[in-house]
Parts: sequence; structure tokens; C-alpha cells
Amino acid sequence: MTIAELKLPTTSAPTLSTDATMKALVYHGPGKRAWEDKARPIIQDAGDAIVRITTSTICGTDLHILKGDLPVVNDGRILGHEGIGVVEEVGPGVSEFHVGDKVIISCVSACLKCDFCKRGMYSHCRHGGWILGYTIDGTQAEYVRIPHADGSLYPFPADADEEAMVMLSDILPTGFECGVLNGQVKPGDTIAIVGAGPVGLAVLLTAQFYSPAAIFMIDLDDKRLAIAKKFGATSLINSADGQAARHVMDLTEGAGVDVAIEAVGIPATFDICQAIVAAGGRIANVGVHGKPVELRLEKLWDRNISITTRLVDTVTTPMLLKVVRSGKLQPAQLVTHRFAITDIMKAYDTFGNAAKEGSLKVVLTSG
Amino acid sequence: MTIAELKLPTTSAPTLSTDATMKALVYHGPGKRAWEDKARPIIQDAGDAIVRITTSTICGTDLHILKGDLPVVNDGRILGHEGIGVVEEVGPGVSEFHVGDKVIISCVSACLKCDFCKRGMYSHCRHGGWILGYTIDGTQAEYVRIPHADGSLYPFPADADEEAMVMLSDILPTGFECGVLNGQVKPGDTIAIVGAGPVGLAVLLTAQFYSPAAIFMIDLDDKRLAIAKKFGATSLINSADGQAARHVMDLTEGAGVDVAIEAVGIPATFDICQAIVAAGGRIANVGVHGKPVELRLEKLWDRNISITTRLVDTVTTPMLLKVVRSGKLQPAQLVTHRFAITDIMKAYDTFGNAAKEGSLKVVLTSG
Amino acid sequence: MTIAELKLPTTSAPTLSTDATMKALVYHGPGKRAWEDKARPIIQDAGDAIVRITTSTICGTDLHILKGDLPVVNDGRILGHEGIGVVEEVGPGVSEFHVGDKVIISCVSACLKCDFCKRGMYSHCRHGGWILGYTIDGTQAEYVRIPHADGSLYPFPADADEEAMVMLSDILPTGFECGVLNGQVKPGDTIAIVGAGPVGLAVLLTAQFYSPAAIFMIDLDDKRLAIAKKFGATSLINSADGQAARHVMDLTEGAGVDVAIEAVGIPATFDICQAIVAAGGRIANVGVHGKPVELRLEKLWDRNISITTRLVDTVTTPMLLKVVRSGKLQPAQLVTHRFAITDIMKAYDTFGNAAKEGSLKVVLTSG
Amino acid sequence: MTIAELKLPTTSAPTLSTDATMKALVYHGPGKRAWEDKARPIIQDAGDAIVRITTSTICGTDLHILKGDLPVVNDGRILGHEGIGVVEEVGPGVSEFHVGDKVIISCVSACLKCDFCKRGMYSHCRHGGWILGYTIDGTQAEYVRIPHADGSLYPFPADADEEAMVMLSDILPTGFECGVLNGQVKPGDTIAIVGAGPVGLAVLLTAQFYSPAAIFMIDLDDKRLAIAKKFGATSLINSADGQAARHVMDLTEGAGVDVAIEAVGIPATFDICQAIVAAGGRIANVGVHGKPVELRLEKLWDRNISITTRLVDTVTTPMLLKVVRSGKLQPAQLVTHRFAITDIMKAYDTFGNAAKEGSLKVVLTSG
Repeated sequence: MTIAELKLPTTSAPTLSTDATMKALVYHGPGKRAWEDKARPIIQDAGDAIVRITTSTICGTDLHILKGDLPVVNDGRILGHEGIGVVEEVGPGVSEFHVGDKVIISCVSACLKCDFCKRGMYSHCRHGGWILGYTIDGTQAEYVRIPHADGSLYPFPADADEEAMVMLSDILPTGFECGVLNGQVKPGDTIAIVGAGPVGLAVLLTAQFYSPAAIFMIDLDDKRLAIAKKFGATSLINSADGQAARHVMDLTEGAGVDVAIEAVGIPATFDICQAIVAAGGRIANVGVHGKPVELRLEKLWDRNISITTRLVDTVTTPMLLKVVRSGKLQPAQLVTHRFAITDIMKAYDTFGNAAKEGSLKVVLTSG
Repeated sequence: MTIAELKLPTTSAPTLSTDATMKALVYHGPGKRAWEDKARPIIQDAGDAIVRITTSTICGTDLHILKGDLPVVNDGRILGHEGIGVVEEVGPGVSEFHVGDKVIISCVSACLKCDFCKRGMYSHCRHGGWILGYTIDGTQAEYVRIPHADGSLYPFPADADEEAMVMLSDILPTGFECGVLNGQVKPGDTIAIVGAGPVGLAVLLTAQFYSPAAIFMIDLDDKRLAIAKKFGATSLINSADGQAARHVMDLTEGAGVDVAIEAVGIPATFDICQAIVAAGGRIANVGVHGKPVELRLEKLWDRNISITTRLVDTVTTPMLLKVVRSGKLQPAQLVTHRFAITDIMKAYDTFGNAAKEGSLKVVLTSG
Repeated sequence: MTIAELKLPTTSAPTLSTDATMKALVYHGPGKRAWEDKARPIIQDAGDAIVRITTSTICGTDLHILKGDLPVVNDGRILGHEGIGVVEEVGPGVSEFHVGDKVIISCVSACLKCDFCKRGMYSHCRHGGWILGYTIDGTQAEYVRIPHADGSLYPFPADADEEAMVMLSDILPTGFECGVLNGQVKPGDTIAIVGAGPVGLAVLLTAQFYSPAAIFMIDLDDKRLAIAKKFGATSLINSADGQAARHVMDLTEGAGVDVAIEAVGIPATFDICQAIVAAGGRIANVGVHGKPVELRLEKLWDRNISITTRLVDTVTTPMLLKVVRSGKLQPAQLVTHRFAITDIMKAYDTFGNAAKEGSLKVVLTSG
Repeated sequence: MTIAELKLPTTSAPTLSTDATMKALVYHGPGKRAWEDKARPIIQDAGDAIVRITTSTICGTDLHILKGDLPVVNDGRILGHEGIGVVEEVGPGVSEFHVGDKVIISCVSACLKCDFCKRGMYSHCRHGGWILGYTIDGTQAEYVRIPHADGSLYPFPADADEEAMVMLSDILPTGFECGVLNGQVKPGDTIAIVGAGPVGLAVLLTAQFYSPAAIFMIDLDDKRLAIAKKFGATSLINSADGQAARHVMDLTEGAGVDVAIEAVGIPATFDICQAIVAAGGRIANVGVHGKPVELRLEKLWDRNISITTRLVDTVTTPMLLKVVRSGKLQPAQLVTHRFAITDIMKAYDTFGNAAKEGSLKVVLTSG
């Protein structure tokens, strides 16, 4: 998963910009990215806010974009959909935020007014959804324009830690909503999480809100499994032997798990999930899939299971904020590396070489 | 779907039996069935009841057995898992039913005591589940032994109609639980039912408990679609042109349906469901599948949908009884043909040639 | 419940206004109301819309205000929180509605942005809630200013009937949300509705979305009970003999009802509800109460019941619109009298003398 | 709450019985109890089991009986509805338990077959419910007859601790079902528990399954509050000043709590709950009430709250067993005193003088 980078002659050290320009991490087609000058964003719609970024981070999805997997992303696009910052300017339709407010930026922009938003499905907002660093410029920059600011920003708690809070932009609500809520984790449940990457670990952390009795963590990487152990997994299964499903069935005396959470996004890991789900259980898909999978309906039609998919809605951000502030969730645990935003090219290398670097989330700070 | 039958020399008209023997419809391997003498069942366990059958019916699953699709069924097995009858004898552990009580026999036997039964998953009862006419002798006979009688029988309402009530043995709870409840049909929803056979029609009838705004019925057979119209479908789609999904998308202006209910059990019909489910929607699988399907996770991973499977639990039988008794559900509408039980060989022919005969449910009566 | 009215010398027939003034129904302290000139509303906030009223109606709450029961209402306040109209002007923050759009006005104004709105509790919106005709000027006028227009208006369906649609402003969502949803009415349930006034009848109409088996309607007025019969009640109980609870218990063979819905707002009717709720049942309070009630916890602590209260949130308006459009709900049935808006003084008399006039909802239309 | 005891001349030390008699704690009318000889129970119905008690405990309800508050309890009744024991004999209808099995006895007996049991409302079982030590002889004895054994006993986990497990007979499911589940405690919630007695503390322990952000514990006794602190309460409020509600409102900046759990059973503590519940919140009643309360509907009708009551159903016992076995719940923390069963008279004194003795649960063990 190493990401090739754009080799630009850099005649001087990267610097922060002034005036009407700014620095930003820009996508220039598959394999190409640069930290370069861009025009500062300006208010375009009544609901917009301009936010000066103080902390951001890199997501696995950014790597997918750089690999060219999401062709909808244009050359010239500023990447990034996670961040903490300070409101610099607001449009006339913004009522909940004011200049100077410190905010958490949600990866999903929500107009709050359309039918999907009213149903709590911000991910499918007719005027927003996941657009930051995808169809509009994102947060790996000095400034970002946030459309529908009232539905897309959250107040940064007075005494909070930016490193912890930036995990609320995407990874924590993703793990919680797509994995834990959709999987309906209950006290006493036996659950399995397939994939101990950052998102799988976010599932692991937030699943414990509901006191499952057993949490099996399945991954190919023993280092990540060791982290999972520290984060609360009760059994670790290295799937390198191709026998993960068998191990789970042995551990559960043939019953399988109440909830199987897929946090990778490939057919092989989905197959583990469908092989281990107990009668009456749930398969919650968190991973981003690029191919169809074979669903074994001839075995599952009478098993009374559910399979769910979900693009994170971030509707649980207020709840997650409360839990983080109560101290029951320590999201900063997910951070392994820290960089100045000016070193973002290096940060991408570190994040992209996760196995070698032992990286989970890398945090980028400004100023 | 014509079913070959066992050609036995019948020297006299079929008669009902006396003494310790009885007549029953017996499976003798793929394609072979006979109405023949069998020993009358006797109490074997404390929870057993012996029921004299007064009304029974034939299920599509019985045809599957006769085709040899369910090899677990032994030569010599009495078929049938639906019926109305009168309790003739009870074991010492039976407390809710007494000799002389008229009862509805559930297709699923529930011990009520195991972990699955306590969770309302009678279908996975550790001592029961679907066993009648499958792993133990069934209801297409003069008498049947019902294990776990207290969890497997329901009192027949004083003034009710046997023809209507026998639809509560299987088809109504199947359509309702697997299709309507799992599909979470809500007032105002747009739903599609793929398959207008008896089970799909049971879905149609019971979906209306929740006042959906639009019900699309999809089938290859215009006669069945016409019945669906009469039963409350708001749009009919003949899928013979292979364009069912496109028609649904046109009718919904590209939005798709809130609930897609699969009531056939083949990959093609499942494909229709995954092509038409709206973001945030549910696919409820009712059909019995013999093969895997291709699940388009690369398209569905971010659609916030759920897919459910279920073998009927019959836990809603008390609720269905109340609705039937209130007159809001007229299950006898599903009955197209009536036979004396002694004509069951002919009844199988009629039911097996559904397209030609225009048959939905055939009712068999004794005495 | 007759409402005294302000006797003004009226030298000419009431007329519609011109220019910057308009006619409106104005509250002038307990017992005093007038149809008089007021300044036309203007945009005050970015989220405002100005709506020209084409249809409105009178609510029981308006009578409460006129009796002086809600002292928060100031002298000079234009009454009314229900209406249909046409958008005349919008502020810069309004994105979902445009000049010329025909709209349904919700009785509850929702900013959609605050914590309560995000939880679907529009009734407790920190910037809105029930304010129209209460703390700001209302809809019984030629024009009204609607704050938070994107959350407080709904598109009027192209081919719909204004008389039917104005029932969606308040009475239908009130009956549905506070009574039916909070009461968790399910197929096969036995329910009782105490109070056959307009709101009780709205409960009755919308409860049928869920196919209850029996609906007992309880009221003192046989005429209203007769209407309830026509609307789908299965048993009528005149409570004049003080024996309503006993009648319900007799009809249910001592079991009581699954759901008891209080739609009056006085201790006596709440008492009926707590006397008739079955073990495991729900009491859903719809009525507006002015006094405490005695809750018989010494009898109810072990009955596994729930009691709910709710100010309507109007979050179900989109669902109700779909059901109305499907033809499964005919809200115009609730309309008994029609007036030109210029005859609103007379309309109040008719509505206020409900028993004598046989009035349910009175509809007011503008030229 | 000191309980007077029957002063019997005891000429010898209490002993365990032999043959067909046994020793038991017997109620002889208000204020009178004795540890005396009784006939050993025998199988009466097919579903019965006889259990030899190894561990039992005393409940606050036993004190209520001794005070004469539950006149339905007859002179001569053996008290007690909690216990651990070994199955000595089973009737022919018992299938899940066998002679020699170690079991947890549930305070609620469930036939599993009636309509209430099928709905999970074992508390209202038509043939059981709370009967042990109430309408039939109970567990404070050497032997007890358990009707409907398959629905009223749970397997004792192989390696478990009797002291911990006996908390599963009543107090833990009571706190969990009536308080936590009915209160719908969610991650991030702010909750208040009124009453830090054994049941209130059981609420406190089990509420943490769902990761509330703040737990206020309200009681008159600082010693109990100190225990609550140790058990996870985040704020302690001594209500002796009559200002508990005000303190809660101050701590929540006027918002009130998401869930208020009443665990005492008197009007004053219910009043605290209704004064502190936030809009949209829940009041879960756990206490046993002897008098009506005044419900402030004039203040609450528009607050969108729910109030629930419940006699424990014990349907969550399997879930609780899983959580206890996972180590996430340590119920033995509730045990403050231990006695041999032969010292039960003394144990009652200790338990009855809770404030002075600092007692929560007292455990009684047999040889």
C-alpha cells in the first residue's frame, strides 16, 4: 500500500502561506500529490464557513484516492476530510457558529434540511454527504470552506485535546455507526472484528460502550493484534493460516458470533464474516468494497441473520463527544505519529507504509 | 414444477383407516409419494400431543422434498407441516391443551425452554424447529404426533373457519415475519415484492397491516399479478422482459424502494432486489435459496441498507390470530382448490401444476 | 366552552387589506378577539419566509388562549398555528423553498440545527418549537412570517386538496405522534381512545395505519361517538355514567387494553386510562393538562406499563404526507364547517360551540 | 426498619434437619418469624423440581412481608425468593435440568407457555410470576419446590462463585430490567439514581453496561453514597437538605437528566424524579410503591417523557450471566455480611438494621 509521490524539485523548505494563497496537499492524478500553493477558499453560499485548520489527519480513503481508485476525484483537488480548526468567516445563513469558534470538522457535510438529513442519513444528504477532499477541496490545507456549516461542524469542547478530537471527524463515528450500532452490539455478546487497522480499532474501542462479553480480533499483522489486545480485545486470531473462521468456531464451540464486523473491504474478509455469524446474528460491513462478494444464501437463508452496509452519517458525533469527555473513551490511543502540517508529504509516507512503520493514525498540526 | 407421482395399483377407493393404523401421504424417494397405511402415532415424550387432522394443506416445500431437493428426508416419511385438528391425547408435560381441544398446528415446533426459544427464535429451537414432515412424520395424515405441544399448537378460535386458520400454520407467519417484519414496512413506504406465489401473496396481505403507500408486485405470471392486484398491490410488473428493476426505478423516479422482499429463492430475483433497494432501505429474503448469489457490495457498501434472512419462527401467530379475528385479514382468499384428504394424490397434481391450474393454496379436509 | 368575543362596532363588511397592512385575528386579552388591521410581516432573519395564507383553521388551543389559560400570550398577538399558503418572500438562508411555492405550514417551527432538532424533538427546538400564534404572530391572517422556514414548511403536493392538507399542520401529526407512535399501536392490539374531539379522532384515523384489532372510543357526546364509528372505532362507550373503565374491563374480559390514549387533558380521563391499561400496556397522553393527576403507583408499580407525554414534533409530516397521498388516510373527513377568512369571528363561534354546532374542524379560506 | 422477631425459647442450637422434615424460616404474621421444622417439599406437578438450597439471601421485600405490608402472605409461609442449590428431584415434564445439577433460582417462576411468558413478561406469568416466598413456600429453607423448573432455574456456571451468582436471583435483573433497560440508558447519557440501597446499587452497576457519561447517586445515607462512589457513581447528592432536585438541575445547568431511576418507592423520591427529568427523558420506576403519587402532568404533558413501571421479568438472566462471567460485572461487591443459614434469625436482624450495620446484601450458606 505504499503510495508513490509526486517528485517536485523543492528549492526551499515548505512554508505556510500568506495573503490570499495558502498551502495545501493537492492530488494530481494517480500516484501524484504535492504540498503546494492554492487560493484561499472564500464564502460561496449562505451556509458556508471558512475554517483555519489547526489539526488534521490522513485517512485510508486518501490513499485509495491517490491510487486512482476513486476516479471522480479531479486533478487539482485538495485532499482530506478530517480536521480541527478555528472559524474565520461565516455566511449569512450560519447561526450556530461564529468567527473565532474552535470546531471539529465532520467528514460528512449535512444540510440538515433534505429528506435524508431529516432521517438522520447525513451520508446521503442531497446537498452534501461525503464531499470534502472528494468532490470539493478538503482539510489537508491551511484553510477549508465548509458548506452547510451548521450541520457539518461541532463545537470543540473547551478543555479538550485536539489529537483526541480529530478522531471524531471520521474514524470514531465510522467504527461506531457502521460497526457497533449497525451490528447492534449488546451486553454479553460475543463479537468478532475482522481487520485491526485504524477503523477496526475504532470499532473495538466503541464496541465496549455496550459491554460485550468477548471480542475476537482477526488480522494478519501480529503488531496490530497486540494493539487490539491493549485496547480490549479478549482473543486474537492471526488469519495468516487461512483458518480464522475455524478458530472462531472452535472458540465459540460451534455457535459462531453474535456480531461479525467486516473492517477491511475485500471478499476474503467478508467470507470470514459469513462463515462465523451465529444464527440470529448480524454482519456489519464497515469496509469499502471494490468488488462483489459471493453471498452464501443457500447456507444463510434460514439463519435469521442481517447484513448491513453504511457510509458513516456522523449523527452520533454529539453522543461520542459526551463519551469522550466523560473519559470512557480515549481516542488519542489511535495516534501513533505526529507531524507538522508542513511535513505532510513525509506523513503520507509513514501512513502509507503502515505495516513497516507501525502507523495507525498520523496527526498533522499547524502553527 | 410438475411432480411425478408413485403409480400404485389402487384396487379400491381410498378410505379412512381404523384401529391402530391410519392413512397418510408418504414420501418414497424422489418423485414418489403414496396415500397409504401407516401406524397411528403414539405419545413418546411428556410434551407430546396426538392430533387428529381435520384440515391440512400442501406447501411448496413439500414439492421440493418430492423433487429430492432435501435429501435429509427419509423414505417412508409422512409429509406435511400445516394443519388444523383435534387433540386426541396429551403427555403428562402438556398443560395448555386438553383432549378435545381444536388446534392450529404450527409448522415450527418450539420447546419454549432452550436459549433460542427464549429469544423468540423458535425456528432454531434446539429440540424442535421445522421438523414436521421433514425429520419426523407430518400432518398429511389422519393423525400426527406434535412434540412440544404447548409451544407448537395454538387454540382454534371458537367461531373461526378452518380454511382461513390453516393459513396460520405456515404461510402467513412466513410472509409476515420473514418479509414484512424483517423488511420493517412502515406507513407511507414504497415496497416491492418479487414473486406472486402463495408466500409472496402472504407478504402482500400482511404488509398492509402497516399501510405502505405503494406496493409493486413483480412476477412472470400475469394471472398471479391479477390476483395481487385484487389483494392490494398498487403496481404490477411482469418481469418476463428482464427489465423489472428498470421499471421499478422509473416508477420511483430513480429512488428505488424502501423495502424489497424476495419471495422466490433464485439469484435472478435476489438481483432485482439489490438493484431496486433505495439508500437506507431493506432487502428481506423470504425465498428458500439453493445457490449462492452475487452481492454487489462494491455498489452497496455505502448505501446504508440491510439484508435479512429468516426461517419463520411463528412467534407472531398470536398477533396474526388477533388480526384475522378482527376481520382485517382474510386468509381464505389464498385458497383456490379444495379436496377431501382421500384425494390428496390429485391435490398434489393440482398444486404442482400451479401455472396451468391457477392454484395457490389447496385445502384438504377430513371426515 | 363558549368563547366570548370582542364586540366591536363594525361599520362595514370585513375586507381584505392592501399595501403594507393586512387583516388578522388578534387576541386582546381573555375573552377578547378581533379581525383587524395589522402591519404585514417582513423578513427578520436569514431563515425567514413570508407566506400568504390561503387556508387556515382553528385549534382547541386557540380557545384555551382566548380563555386566558396561556398567560404568556400577549395582547395584540395574531393567533393561529395551522395553515396552507404561498411563499411570497424568503431570507438568504432559506434554500428549500422559493417564491411562489405552495406550502403546508407546520405548527412547530424547527431550526433543524440545535441538539433537540437533531434528535427529532422539534417541539423543543431551542430557537423554535411551538411559537406561531403563541409567542410570535400566527396564521389566522393574510400573511405570516415563518422563522426557520426550511424546517417549518412542507411542499404542498401538486394535486392535493387544501382542506385535507391543512390537517397536516397540527392535528394529524399530534394524534399520530403523541397518541399512536408513543402508544406503540401494533397489529392486533386492543386500544382505547378517551376523547372523541378532533384530536381524538385524528388518533383514531392514524391508529388504523397499524391495524389494531379493536378500537374503543370513549366520550360523553353520542354525536361524536357516531362519527368515531364512521371513522373506524369498533366499540363506542359513552362515559356519562362514570362507568367507562368498567365497560372497558368487561369488553376485554378483565384484561384491559394494550394502549390507552388520553385525548382530553383532565384528571378524570387520565384516571380512565390508568384504570384500563393492561399489564404490559401503554398510556399515551395527548391532552393538554392544566392540573396534576393522581398516579396510582401503588397499583401500577408492578404492571410493566409506560406512560408517555409529548408535544407534537411534526417529524412525521413527510410520512403522513405519503400516506395521505396514497389515499389510505382521508383527513378532510375531519372538516365539518367552512368559512371565508373574513368570517373568522363567526367561525370561532361555531368552533367554540362544538357540542351545539356539531363542529370538528372549521376551515377558513382566503379569496 | 428494625424487624421484631418471634421470641421462641431455643433450648438447643439450631440444627439442620433429617428425613422428611427440614428447617425453614417461617412467617407467622406481622413481626413474627421463626427458624423451625417444616415438611420437606415434594413434587406436585410435572414441571416441578425440588432443590436443596446451598446459598440464599434476604430481600427488602422479605422485610415488607414481615412488617405485614403484604397481607396476602399467610401465616406459616416459608419466606425467600433468592437462592442457589442442587436439584434433588424433577417431575416428568422437566427436560432442561437433572438431578445433581447446580442451579440459580429465579425470584420469578415462568411457565414459558402462557401469553405473558411468550411476550417475555414472566412477571405476569399466568401460572407463576413472583410466587416463591409469597404465595408458595420459598428459599430460606433447606429445600424448596420450584414450579415450572425449566423456566425458573438457570444452570450454575461451572467455575462460578455462589455469592456472586445468588445476586442473579433477583437484585441484578431487577435493577437492570426495571431501571436500566426501561430507562433506556445510552452511551453519553446523564442519569440519576434515587436510592442507594441494594437495588439502587444494582442499577448503578448494570447501568454501566451502556457507558453513561454521568451518574448522579441520590440518598440520605453518606455511607451508602460512599459505596456508590466506589461502584462508579460520578456525583453524590445527599438529599437530607430537601434540595436534591435543585442540586441535579445545577449540575446539569438546568437541563435535567436523560434518565431518572426511582429505587425507593415513596412519593418524595418519585417527586425528585419528575423534577429532574429532562425534556425527552425517561423516569424508570424500580421501587415498590404503597401509595399514589402526584404526577405533575400540567408541567410534564409537553416534555416528551416516558414513565415506566415493572416487576422484574428475569428475562435478562442469560445476558447477565454472560456479563458476570466475562468479568465486567462483579456482583459479589453487594455482599456485606455472611451467615450460616442456621443463623438466619441473626442475619435478619443485621439486614433489617441496614443503616446501623452498614449492610447491603447478607448471604446465607448451608453446610
